[in-house]
Amino acid sequence: MAIKTGQDYIQSLKGRKLTVYLFGEQVQDPVEHPMIRPSINAVAETYDLAAREEDLASPMSKISGKRVNRFLHIAESANDLVLQNKMQRKLGQLTGTCFQRCVGMDALNSLHSTTFEIDEKHHTNYHKRLLAFIKKMQEENFVIGGAMTDVKGDRSKAPSEQADPDLFVHITKRTADGVYVTGAKAHQTGVINSHWMIIMPTIRLLEKDKDWGIVGAIPVDAPGITYIYGRQSCDTRSMEEGDIDAGNSQFAGQEAMVILDNVFIPNDLIFMNGEVEFAAMLVERFTCYHRRSYVCKTGLGDVLIGAAAAISDYNGIPDVSHIRDKLVEMTHLNESIFAAGISSSYQAQEMKSGVWLNDDMLANVCKHNVTRFPYEISRLAQDIAGGLVVTLPSEQDFRNTTTGPLLKKYLAGRKGTDVENRMRILRLIENMTLGRNAVGYLTESMHGAGSPQAQRIQIARQMQLGYKKNLAKNLANVKEDAEESKENSDYFKRVFKIPK
Amino acid sequence: MAIKTGQDYIQSLKGRKLTVYLFGEQVQDPVEHPMIRPSINAVAETYDLAAREEDLASPMSKISGKRVNRFLHIAESANDLVLQNKMQRKLGQLTGTCFQRCVGMDALNSLHSTTFEIDEKHHTNYHKRLLAFIKKMQEENFVIGGAMTDVKGDRSKAPSEQADPDLFVHITKRTADGVYVTGAKAHQTGVINSHWMIIMPTIRLLEKDKDWGIVGAIPVDAPGITYIYGRQSCDTRSMEEGDIDAGNSQFAGQEAMVILDNVFIPNDLIFMNGEVEFAAMLVERFTCYHRRSYVCKTGLGDVLIGAAAAISDYNGIPDVSHIRDKLVEMTHLNESIFAAGISSSYQAQEMKSGVWLNDDMLANVCKHNVTRFPYEISRLAQDIAGGLVVTLPSEQDFRNTTTGPLLKKYLAGRKGTDVENRMRILRLIENMTLGRNAVGYLTESMHGAGSPQAQRIQIARQMQLGYKKNLAKNLANVKEDAEESKENSDYFKRVFKIPK
Amino acid sequence: MAIKTGQDYIQSLKGRKLTVYLFGEQVQDPVEHPMIRPSINAVAETYDLAAREEDLASPMSKISGKRVNRFLHIAESANDLVLQNKMQRKLGQLTGTCFQRCVGMDALNSLHSTTFEIDEKHHTNYHKRLLAFIKKMQEENFVIGGAMTDVKGDRSKAPSEQADPDLFVHITKRTADGVYVTGAKAHQTGVINSHWMIIMPTIRLLEKDKDWGIVGAIPVDAPGITYIYGRQSCDTRSMEEGDIDAGNSQFAGQEAMVILDNVFIPNDLIFMNGEVEFAAMLVERFTCYHRRSYVCKTGLGDVLIGAAAAISDYNGIPDVSHIRDKLVEMTHLNESIFAAGISSSYQAQEMKSGVWLNDDMLANVCKHNVTRFPYEISRLAQDIAGGLVVTLPSEQDFRNTTTGPLLKKYLAGRKGTDVENRMRILRLIENMTLGRNAVGYLTESMHGAGSPQAQRIQIARQMQLGYKKNLAKNLANVKEDAEESKENSDYFKRVFKIPK
Amino acid sequence: MAIKTGQDYIQSLKGRKLTVYLFGEQVQDPVEHPMIRPSINAVAETYDLAAREEDLASPMSKISGKRVNRFLHIAESANDLVLQNKMQRKLGQLTGTCFQRCVGMDALNSLHSTTFEIDEKHHTNYHKRLLAFIKKMQEENFVIGGAMTDVKGDRSKAPSEQADPDLFVHITKRTADGVYVTGAKAHQTGVINSHWMIIMPTIRLLEKDKDWGIVGAIPVDAPGITYIYGRQSCDTRSMEEGDIDAGNSQFAGQEAMVILDNVFIPNDLIFMNGEVEFAAMLVERFTCYHRRSYVCKTGLGDVLIGAAAAISDYNGIPDVSHIRDKLVEMTHLNESIFAAGISSSYQAQEMKSGVWLNDDMLANVCKHNVTRFPYEISRLAQDIAGGLVVTLPSEQDFRNTTTGPLLKKYLAGRKGTDVENRMRILRLIENMTLGRNAVGYLTESMHGAGSPQAQRIQIARQMQLGYKKNLAKNLANVKEDAEESKENSDYFKRVFKIPK
Repeated sequence: MAIKTGQDYIQSLKGRKLTVYLFGEQVQDPVEHPMIRPSINAVAETYDLAAREEDLASPMSKISGKRVNRFLHIAESANDLVLQNKMQRKLGQLTGTCFQRCVGMDALNSLHSTTFEIDEKHHTNYHKRLLAFIKKMQEENFVIGGAMTDVKGDRSKAPSEQADPDLFVHITKRTADGVYVTGAKAHQTGVINSHWMIIMPTIRLLEKDKDWGIVGAIPVDAPGITYIYGRQSCDTRSMEEGDIDAGNSQFAGQEAMVILDNVFIPNDLIFMNGEVEFAAMLVERFTCYHRRSYVCKTGLGDVLIGAAAAISDYNGIPDVSHIRDKLVEMTHLNESIFAAGISSSYQAQEMKSGVWLNDDMLANVCKHNVTRFPYEISRLAQDIAGGLVVTLPSEQDFRNTTTGPLLKKYLAGRKGTDVENRMRILRLIENMTLGRNAVGYLTESMHGAGSPQAQRIQIARQMQLGYKKNLAKNLANVKEDAEESKENSDYFKRVFKIPK
Repeated sequence: MAIKTGQDYIQSLKGRKLTVYLFGEQVQDPVEHPMIRPSINAVAETYDLAAREEDLASPMSKISGKRVNRFLHIAESANDLVLQNKMQRKLGQLTGTCFQRCVGMDALNSLHSTTFEIDEKHHTNYHKRLLAFIKKMQEENFVIGGAMTDVKGDRSKAPSEQADPDLFVHITKRTADGVYVTGAKAHQTGVINSHWMIIMPTIRLLEKDKDWGIVGAIPVDAPGITYIYGRQSCDTRSMEEGDIDAGNSQFAGQEAMVILDNVFIPNDLIFMNGEVEFAAMLVERFTCYHRRSYVCKTGLGDVLIGAAAAISDYNGIPDVSHIRDKLVEMTHLNESIFAAGISSSYQAQEMKSGVWLNDDMLANVCKHNVTRFPYEISRLAQDIAGGLVVTLPSEQDFRNTTTGPLLKKYLAGRKGTDVENRMRILRLIENMTLGRNAVGYLTESMHGAGSPQAQRIQIARQMQLGYKKNLAKNLANVKEDAEESKENSDYFKRVFKIPK
Repeated sequence: MAIKTGQDYIQSLKGRKLTVYLFGEQVQDPVEHPMIRPSINAVAETYDLAAREEDLASPMSKISGKRVNRFLHIAESANDLVLQNKMQRKLGQLTGTCFQRCVGMDALNSLHSTTFEIDEKHHTNYHKRLLAFIKKMQEENFVIGGAMTDVKGDRSKAPSEQADPDLFVHITKRTADGVYVTGAKAHQTGVINSHWMIIMPTIRLLEKDKDWGIVGAIPVDAPGITYIYGRQSCDTRSMEEGDIDAGNSQFAGQEAMVILDNVFIPNDLIFMNGEVEFAAMLVERFTCYHRRSYVCKTGLGDVLIGAAAAISDYNGIPDVSHIRDKLVEMTHLNESIFAAGISSSYQAQEMKSGVWLNDDMLANVCKHNVTRFPYEISRLAQDIAGGLVVTLPSEQDFRNTTTGPLLKKYLAGRKGTDVENRMRILRLIENMTLGRNAVGYLTESMHGAGSPQAQRIQIARQMQLGYKKNLAKNLANVKEDAEESKENSDYFKRVFKIPK
Repeated sequence: MAIKTGQDYIQSLKGRKLTVYLFGEQVQDPVEHPMIRPSINAVAETYDLAAREEDLASPMSKISGKRVNRFLHIAESANDLVLQNKMQRKLGQLTGTCFQRCVGMDALNSLHSTTFEIDEKHHTNYHKRLLAFIKKMQEENFVIGGAMTDVKGDRSKAPSEQADPDLFVHITKRTADGVYVTGAKAHQTGVINSHWMIIMPTIRLLEKDKDWGIVGAIPVDAPGITYIYGRQSCDTRSMEEGDIDAGNSQFAGQEAMVILDNVFIPNDLIFMNGEVEFAAMLVERFTCYHRRSYVCKTGLGDVLIGAAAAISDYNGIPDVSHIRDKLVEMTHLNESIFAAGISSSYQAQEMKSGVWLNDDMLANVCKHNVTRFPYEISRLAQDIAGGLVVTLPSEQDFRNTTTGPLLKKYLAGRKGTDVENRMRILRLIENMTLGRNAVGYLTESMHGAGSPQAQRIQIARQMQLGYKKNLAKNLANVKEDAEESKENSDYFKRVFKIPK
C-alpha cells in the first residue's frame, strides 16, 4: 500500500537493513536515532504538504494518470517548474532546513530527456525503462535520492586515469542480467532517508571511460552498500536533553558518504550503459534543474528574517531605523534569489521527450546569488540578534534551580518578554547561522549543485560575447570588424522568445 | 495618416510650435538641433522595431482591434508584461540609451485600472474617456509622455501647504469645458519628442489637496507650455564635428523641465479630477509597472559588456583569466536584474478593469538592483578598458595630419587592430560610464521611478514580518506568542498562487 | 612569587573556589574541565609569548620600573599602542582564537586618563589608587578582566529607571570601608580565567544614576559571585575523544555571565564612585582602545587564509586562477583591517595623565571593517574548502577498523596527501567558520566592543560635515553660505597634526 | 630667482615653446587656454600651500640644506612619508582634483635608492648625478613630471620584440655627450604644467632590452617633443561662459600623450643606462610609493562628502536617517583608504641610500581600495543628490530673463535656500561623479599607479602562504607536513618589526 502521510513514510523506514556508521559505530535503527530523526522529519513534511496542498505539491501525472507527489513528477509545462519552486520555498519555510528530495526530482527530470535522446541515437530502450521505474515510484510514493557526486581523487585526471579506478563509481562486472558497480558517492543528501537511489556520472566522460558511464536505480538497502554519516556543526545537540539548545529541534538535513561494493543493478533499472557522450548532457541538464532548485533557500531566508524580526521585538527595538533597514536588506536579497529562480522556470522550454527544462543562464544566476546572499543575510541576522546569540548559557542552566531564576531575572528584555522565548529565538538564529542548519543554509548553498566557479564557467559559456560585441561595434560605428555570429549558446534566443 | 516608420515619426515632429529653451536661447527646430537629434533617433527606433518585429513590439489590441505599438498597448495578460520587458531589453541593445517611451506606456496601463476603480466608486466616466483616448493614440500611433514628477519645493509639506501653490501642478480655473492647470514637472523624459503628455499627481494627496488631484492629457504643443532642456554630461560633443568623440553619435536620452502656465484640458481628456483618495493608488500602480520597466538597462548592460569584451580584444588580452572573470561578473549582475524584472511580470495578476499588473515586491527588487549593479558593471568596464578611456586625444587630433599619424603609430594595440576602431570602442565606454549615456545608464537608474529609499519603503510595506515571525516561532517552539496575521500585504499569497 | 610561564599561570588557577555553572551543574575544577581548558591554554600563550619575545610583549613599565606583560602595561607612547596591535596579531596567529586579555588591558589604559581627570576636577585620589593596583598586578603578573557590559533590561530606559535596579550593576550598600555591589555582567570574555576583574559602567549616566557610577577591582573568587558559562557552537566536541573533530583542539575562547550578589569592594580598589559625568568619558576611551584591539582578528585571518591555502594544496588545485584570486582577496581584506588598526595607534595622542590614546575615528573604522570582512573571508574559505567541510564523517569513523580504511581509500586527494591531514585542515576551517572559534572570529567580531551601529554613531560624531561642506562650497563658488566652524570633533586636527 | 608662490609658478610657464596639440590645433599659449588653465591652477596650489603651511609642505632637505617643497624632498624618515600623505589629503581637499605632482615626487624618491644600488654594483655614479639634479630642482623650485607609462603596443611582447621598437621609449643614438631617445609616454599627468620630466622604463627588462633601459631628465621644452592633450569628460565646459556648469571652475587635472622624437639627454642627466636588471626594482619601488600616494583621493572624498551633505541641506532633508547613514558609509570608506595609506607610510623602512620606503603590501592594499571605494562613494553621492544632478538646465538658461525666473521659482527647495547655490553644489557633484574631475576621482583611481590586477599580483607576491599554512597546520595538529619557509616576501618581518 502506497505511502500517504509523513507518518506512513516514517513507518516505511523502519526495520530496514541498512549498514549505517556514525561516531564509529553501526546504527541499529536510524529512525529512532535522535541525531538522525530530525532529518527524517524534514522528509516527512514533504508528504504532509502533498496531502495538505494538492495543487501545490500533488500534480496529476501523465505517466501514472493520477495525482503524485511533485518530487516524483515529470514537468509537463513551464508552470510545473514554477510550482516546483513555490513548493520548495514553502517547504523551506516549514522546516527551516534541507528537506532532501530535490536531487531525486531533478535527476528524474533530467533523465527523462537524456534517455530519450540516447535512445534516439543508439536505438536503446532506456526511456521506456525509466518511465516504468517512475510509474512504480509514483505508485509506491517512494523517496528517490540522486547519487551523482563521486569522490573524485586527483581532480586533474579522468575517471579511467585515476590511480584507483574506484574513485569514480564504475562497472566491475557485466552479466546477462545486469551489472555490478563499485565506488563511492560523497555528500549524499538524505540518502539514508530514501527508498531508492539513482547513480549517475558526475562529469563529462571520454571514450575510454566507458565503464564509468553507468546510470541505474538501486534500492538503498541493496547488498554491498555502506553508509557513513556526515558530521554537522552542533549535531550532538540533537542528542541532548531539552529542545532549546538545538535551535530547531524538529528538523535538520542529512549528508552521508555512500560506499558501493559490487552492488548489482538489473537490466531493467539501467538507464545508461556506456553511452559516454551523453554524460555531459545529463550532468548539464541535472545542474540546470538543480541550480534553480536552490530557491528552497528563500524559504529558509524567510525563517531567518522572521527570527531576526522576532528577536528585535524581544530586545525591545523593532522600530529603530537601522534594524528596520537591515530587515529590508535581508528581504531584498532573499527575493533577488527567488526572482532568479522562478524566472528561470518561467522561461523554460520543452524538450524532445516532452519534459520541460528551465533556462540555464538564469538557473546559474540564481545559484550564484545563493552562494553569496545567504551569507550576508546570516551576517545581518547576527547583527540584529546581538552578542547573546553566542554567549547564552545552556538550557540545563536555565532549568537548574539555582541558575534558572538568575537567568530569568537578568535576561529580561522588553517588558512582557518571556525569557525562554527569547532564548529559543536566539538558539534558532545560532542554528541557522553557525549551527546544524547553517550547514544547509550556508555551506550547502555554496557547494550544492556545483561550487561558485562551476556557475561562472556555465555563465561564461552562455554569455554570447560575439553577439554583444556586435551591439557595441554597431553603436560605436566600428568599421569592418563585425564578429561572425557563431555562438555556442542560444541564451538570447530564449530571452527574446515570444511566449504563447 | 498614421505614423508607421521611424522616418514618419521624425517627419511628424517637424514644424511644431514648441517653446524649447536650451543654453539660454529658444530652439527653432528641435528636430534639426544636433544635440537634440540623437534623442529623437532613439524614439524613432521604437517605431522601426515595431515594424520589424511585430510579435515582439506590435501586439493586437482589444481596444482598437488591430496591431498597435506595444508602447500604446494595454496589457491583456502576464505575457504582455513579459513581452514589454523583452522589447525593452531589445531596444536597450539597439540604442544603448533611454528610448523614452516607458513612462507613457506605464501611465496608460496604470490609468486603465485606476480610472475603472474611480468610476466604480464615484460613478464617473473616466475609464471610457481613457479608452477613447487610447484608441485615438493607437490609431495615430503617437508618442505619449507621462508627466508625473512635480518639482516639490519643501519636501516636508503637502501640495496645498507649500508657500507657492504652483510647486505641484494644480487646477487654477474650472470652466464648463474643462480646467486650466499651472505648475512644473521636472526630469521629463523624452517630453519634447512626444506628441502628447499625461499629467498625473506625484504623491499621496489629502482631502485639502483637491485642486492638485488632476489627471489629464495635453498635446505637447498646447499654449502655455515652456520647455527647458536639461544638460547632460558631455552633451555638447554631439555638436562637434566627427562622430568618434560622442561615443554613441546616433542615440541619446532626453530630460527637460516642463512649465505649465494655465494650460487648458478639455473635459473629455480629464481622467481624474479631485478624487484625491485615488492618487496614491495611481502612483503605486505606476511605479509598480515602471520599476520593472528598468529591465531596459539590461540592454544597455549588454552593450557595455560587449564594448568591454571588444576593447579587451583590441588590447590583445581577451583570454586573460581576470578579464574573463570580470566579464562573467558583469553578465551575472546584468542577468540578475533581468531575472527580477521578468519574474515580476510573469507573476502578474489581473485587475478589475482587465489590465494585468506585475508583482510589486519583485518590481521593487528589480529596480533596487538597478540602483546598484549598473554602477558596478560600469566600474568593471572601466577596469577592463584601461586608462586610455579618459586620456584619449580628440578625434580632431586623430584627423590632423601631424598628430594623426603619431596617434596611429603609438596607439597600435594587438596586431591587426585598427586604431580608429579602438578609439571608437573606448569612446563608447566613456559615453556609457561618464558621458552622455552614463546619465541614463547610471544616474537615471538610481533615481528614475523612485530613488533607492522609495524602493526600500515599498519592500518594507510588503515584507510581511508577522507571517515570517510566525514561521520562526513555530520552528523554535516559542510558546504562546504567535503573531496575529493582520498583514498589510498579500505578497506571499502571490508567491504561492497556483498559475494556470 | 610572580607568574612567569603559561605553566605557572595554569598552576595559579588551580584550587580556587569559584562558583561556575555549566550544563546545569557546578564545575568542580575549571582547569581540568575539557571544555574549559582550551580557553585557559589560550591565555597561557600570552605568558609564553611574553617570555619568548620580550620586545614585543614585555615592555619596561615606568610604574613598576621593570619589564611587565604588555597586557598590564600603560601605553607610554604611540609605539606602545602599535606594539599592542602587533602582539595581538601574533597571538591571533598562535592560537586561532580569542586570548581574552585585551579588555583588561584597554580598561587599565582608559582608567589611567579618566581617573586622572576625575581627580583633577573632584580632588579625589582614584589615580593614585589605580597606579598602586596596576603596580601590584604587574608584580604578581595577574590576568585582569574588564567587566563592562551590563545585561541592560529595557534598552529604552536609564539604569535608575529600570523595573529592576539590578539590571545594571550598582551600589547596594556603603560602609566606611567600601561598597557592596549587585547586578550582572554579560558576555564576560575570559573572566573565569582571570585573577581579577574591574567592573565599570557600560553607558553614559545621568545625575540620578549615581549608585550605578561605580568602578572597582574585585578578585574573581570574591564571595557573592556566580559564573554561568556561555555555550558556543560545537563546544562539546572538546569533550569528545580524539583531537580532529574539534578542529583546533588546543585553543578556544570563553564567555560567561557574571552575577554579583552584594560583592564587597574596599575603598582602595574603588576608582570611581558616583562621578557620573565621567562615565561617558570612560566608556568612550575604553571603546576607542578596544575597537582597535580587534586587529587580533587579522591573526585569526592569517590562520584561516593558511588553512584555505593548505586545503587547496590537498585538493590538488592550489594554482587554479580563481583559487589564487580568492586567497588574494582574503589577504586584501585582512590587511585592510590591520591597516586601519595600526594607523589608529600610530596617530595616537598623549593624554593629560601621560597615557597615550589612539585615534578614535580610525579605531571605529577598524572595528567596523571587522564586522564585515571576517564574514567574507570565512565565506571564501568555505568556497575554497569544498563541501566536505560540512559532510566529513567523525574521527571515530576514521579510527574504526571497518570505515577507517574506506575513508582513507575514498578521501584520497592529490597524490601524496595524507587523508588524516586533509581532515584536520577541513575541521580547522569548520572550527573557524561555523564551529567553536567562529564564535570569536565572526560573531564576536560583530558585537565585541560595540555592535556595528555603535561604530556608525561614533563615526557620525566625528565626521565633521561642517568642515567638509565648506570645502565643497568653496570649490563650487557657493555665495554667502559658509558654515560656521563649530564642530564637535577634532578629527581633522589629528589628521593634519605634524608628527615629531 | 626661485619660484615661490603659485603666481610665480604660473608666470614661469609663460612664453615657453612647447608643441602642444588640442582639438587638432597647436595651442599657442597653454597658460591662457581656458581648458588647460584649471589644471595649472591646481599645480599652483601646491606652491601656495608650501608657503602657507611650512611644516606640512616645506620640510628641511639634507640635500640643499634648506626648506624645499615637499614634492621635491627625499624622505628622511617614516614621518616624512606620513607627511606626504597628509599634504596629499590637504591638497585634495583644496582643489577637488589631481594636483599632478606626486609622480615626480615618487620618481625622485625611488631613484634615490635605485641609483645608489646600481652604483654599488656597477661602480657608476648615477646617485651623485641624481643628487646634483635634485639640488638644482630644489633651488629653482621646479615641477618635475615622472614619465613612466609607455604605450606598450602588443602586451604579450617585450620592448625589443615589438614590431615597432618605438612602442617603448629607447635609445636611438649614443654620443660622447649623451644619448638620443625616441618613443611615446601615455597618460602623462600634468606634464605640460611641468618644467622637467624624468623618463623611466615601465616594466621589467631583459638583457636584450638594453637600449630600453634608460632613465634621464629632460626639460619639457626640449627639441623633439610633441604633446597631444587628452580629452576629459565635459572638458569643454571650462570654455563656456559662466562658472556654474563647470562644477569646479577653478581646478582640474591634466593628462597628455608625450611623443619623443630623438630627444637628447646629456650624460649628467642620465641616471640609468642599460643596467636592465634594475628596471624591475625601480618600477616596484616607484609603484610602492605611488600606490600609497592615492591617499590624495581621500581629500577629494572629503569634498564629495561635503557636497552631498550640502545638497541634503538644500533639499531640506539632512537629518533623515537613511541620508545620515549614507554619509557615514561614505566617511567610513574614505577613512579606510586613508588608514591603509598612512599605515603603509608609518611602517616604512630605511633603504641603503638613506631614503625611506613605505610598506609595499599596505601600499597595494591602499591602492586596491582606491579602485573600489571612490566608485561607491560617488554612487552614494548621486543617490543623495537626487535626479536633478543630471537634468539641471544650463547656467545660460538660469541667466536668461525668461527662463531664469522660472527656474528660480520652480527649483526652490527648503525655505531660505538660494537656487543658484543649489545648482552650484549639484554641478560640483556632477563634476566629481561624471564630469571633468570624475576622471581623476574615478578612472584615474582605477588605473593610476597600476590597474587593480597589478595590485593583486603584488599582494599575491607578498602574502606568504607558506608561513600562513604553517600557522594552520600547527593549530590543526597536522603531522609531518610543515612547509619549508622559503618565502619570497618579508612582509611579516615588517609586520612584527619593533618600531623604535
